[in-house]
Amino acid sequence: MFTTLLSQGPLTRAEAGRRAGLSAAAVTKAVRPLIEAGYLVEDADEEARPALGRPANLVRVDGGRALFIGVKVTGDEIIGVLTDLCCRVLLARHLPLADRAPKAVLASAAALVGELLTEADGFGVRVMGLGIAVSGDVDRAEGVVRYSPFLDWREVPLAELAGMTTGLPVTVDNDVRALTVAEQWFGAGVGLSDFAVVTVGAGIGCGLVVHGRVVAGAHGVAGEIGHVTVDPAGPLCRCGNRGCVEAIAGDDAIVRRIRETTGAEVADAAAAAALAHRGDAGARDAYARAGAAIGRGIATVANLLGPERVIISGEGLAAYDLFAEQIREAFTEAAFGSAARCDVQTRPLPFEEWARGAAATAIQSFTAQHTH
Amino acid sequence: MFTTLLSQGPLTRAEAGRRAGLSAAAVTKAVRPLIEAGYLVEDADEEARPALGRPANLVRVDGGRALFIGVKVTGDEIIGVLTDLCCRVLLARHLPLADRAPKAVLASAAALVGELLTEADGFGVRVMGLGIAVSGDVDRAEGVVRYSPFLDWREVPLAELAGMTTGLPVTVDNDVRALTVAEQWFGAGVGLSDFAVVTVGAGIGCGLVVHGRVVAGAHGVAGEIGHVTVDPAGPLCRCGNRGCVEAIAGDDAIVRRIRETTGAEVADAAAAAALAHRGDAGARDAYARAGAAIGRGIATVANLLGPERVIISGEGLAAYDLFAEQIREAFTEAAFGSAARCDVQTRPLPFEEWARGAAATAIQSFTAQHTH
Ligand SMILES: [Zn+2]
Ligand SMILES: [Zn+2]
Repeated sequence: MFTTLLSQGPLTRAEAGRRAGLSAAAVTKAVRPLIEAGYLVEDADEEARPALGRPANLVRVDGGRALFIGVKVTGDEIIGVLTDLCCRVLLARHLPLADRAPKAVLASAAALVGELLTEADGFGVRVMGLGIAVSGDVDRAEGVVRYSPFLDWREVPLAELAGMTTGLPVTVDNDVRALTVAEQWFGAGVGLSDFAVVTVGAGIGCGLVVHGRVVAGAHGVAGEIGHVTVDPAGPLCRCGNRGCVEAIAGDDAIVRRIRETTGAEVADAAAAAALAHRGDAGARDAYARAGAAIGRGIATVANLLGPERVIISGEGLAAYDLFAEQIREAFTEAAFGSAARCDVQTRPLPFEEWARGAAATAIQSFTAQHTH
Repeated sequence: MFTTLLSQGPLTRAEAGRRAGLSAAAVTKAVRPLIEAGYLVEDADEEARPALGRPANLVRVDGGRALFIGVKVTGDEIIGVLTDLCCRVLLARHLPLADRAPKAVLASAAALVGELLTEADGFGVRVMGLGIAVSGDVDRAEGVVRYSPFLDWREVPLAELAGMTTGLPVTVDNDVRALTVAEQWFGAGVGLSDFAVVTVGAGIGCGLVVHGRVVAGAHGVAGEIGHVTVDPAGPLCRCGNRGCVEAIAGDDAIVRRIRETTGAEVADAAAAAALAHRGDAGARDAYARAGAAIGRGIATVANLLGPERVIISGEGLAAYDLFAEQIREAFTEAAFGSAARCDVQTRPLPFEEWARGAAATAIQSFTAQHTH
């Protein structure tokens, strides 16, 4: 009920009940304590006022009633955001990261969180939870980072450690899953029971929502679209196989291919995109191949799961004009039958979006606690 | 509750409640009408009798209390089974099919069902539902076969038509999904919330259970493992792409490759397997390639969804010894990280299993009606 109002509100009680599949009595029972606690407010909806009788009241979440912090740990920096209960970003902060060891990362994260807590004091509202997003195999239920290749972490009990240093309830999740939660609750996935988020950038990731829930995988692995094979004779991938989507369409793969085919000294993804934007044929070809690989990967997801929508996101979207057409072509070609009807969208990703995803997981944990 | 007892019973009331997530009061409320109707029986469990006090009663489904008919329509025959409420096959019947037009198929199916209804009379128990399984895009909720390439059917309202001719409540579903329901309720998928069934034979199919429910796809397409690309330079597939799993590992593809590489006049899959079993290197190689393609397809499913188990089944399993090793090798190689921990099993498939799957969908519909 609270989730429905958070994602889809404001709504009348009747409509919220219908969408959450609850009776009027159940709605009243669910809504009362949340109104008393101040998380929900009920306003007369003047516009919807019928000619006769009293106006239909609209129930909405009072976003300003609680604050959350989301933190994303990347290889070289920590990004933190302060959001309200509706996951609107109030503030964002970066902190460069010199050392990837858990202790150093934790100290930096604690400093960043401390800064955001001080800012939160200014709003006069309490921070109710902290979400931390990390790439790799993350056990959210246990709060443990099982294995993060990027950070070179194994079995780090991050939720416990961060809880001790910050004093906040902590939710730890895989970064792509966190982003998927943000889309499901507050983005292009609202109201969809089956959709996918595909992230393009250093890695190629995928978050899957099936039957209304994010897929976690029985053994911690799911959504590894980056390691779908596109070409068994293609370039070697860090996973040991050849021709994975990531080995063709990841930032490093694009940069490497441009260096090899053009001989140009391309330093990073930004330089690669700049070269392609200047019309260099070899650079443009590398992006075209990347687009085709991503499109095929998305078609594989569509053929297996038949999602309603695929949302393409990630920092790699900065170069989207260089491969958008190829993504679409390859997807249409490889999608089987009516799987091609899947709505493939792109969604620009502000730099703080990953951290916002982490905040969304904290809001999710908070909500679960207040509705059970 | 009824589903839990059907799949996992006999169980004590306490245990059934625990597994179904119901309180003792809810169990009592759910169980009473089903006991009164005779579908459930409660016996004293003498073995579990405590030293003192009364024995713990076990509740179980009385399978003989209701019968069901399952029908599978293939390109050249109709297979029908009569099962009990626990999906145990009591009788199986074939009928060759000369004409694939809906009218002709319907007439043959009606004849087969009539025969099974007569047999059911002998048991003195009513047939409570008919399930029909067809390959292709089937809209179970509407009872319509949207598109079946094998039968060349489009928009056939099969449930309505079969209901009129047989007088039974009819459930129509995709054949692979029906088989998956049978595994979920009565087979190797019992108790698992995430697993996959991969069928090997004329086509390569896949049924997926995610979060405890069979994936149907927003647009009717899901589980198309047969059209996962294994080799973009590989043989042309009927879907228009190159190197799909089915274009390498489907019966026709294996037969075609053996003809091409050995020059042998191989008539069908049985002849192909016989040649390979006699040690022909070209034939063995065709099966090895098929196994590698299937293994890669399964790895893709595991990498995206992280199922607990993959159950390989289908009439193609008759030649399983010819490609089992290659399936396992390719799966292990292409599975990403802990996705390799997925339990890949094989399950021999008696010829009537597809029809049994159809019966399982009828039992599922019947159960849904009696528990809501
Ligand atoms: Zn890889
Ligand atoms: Zn194909």
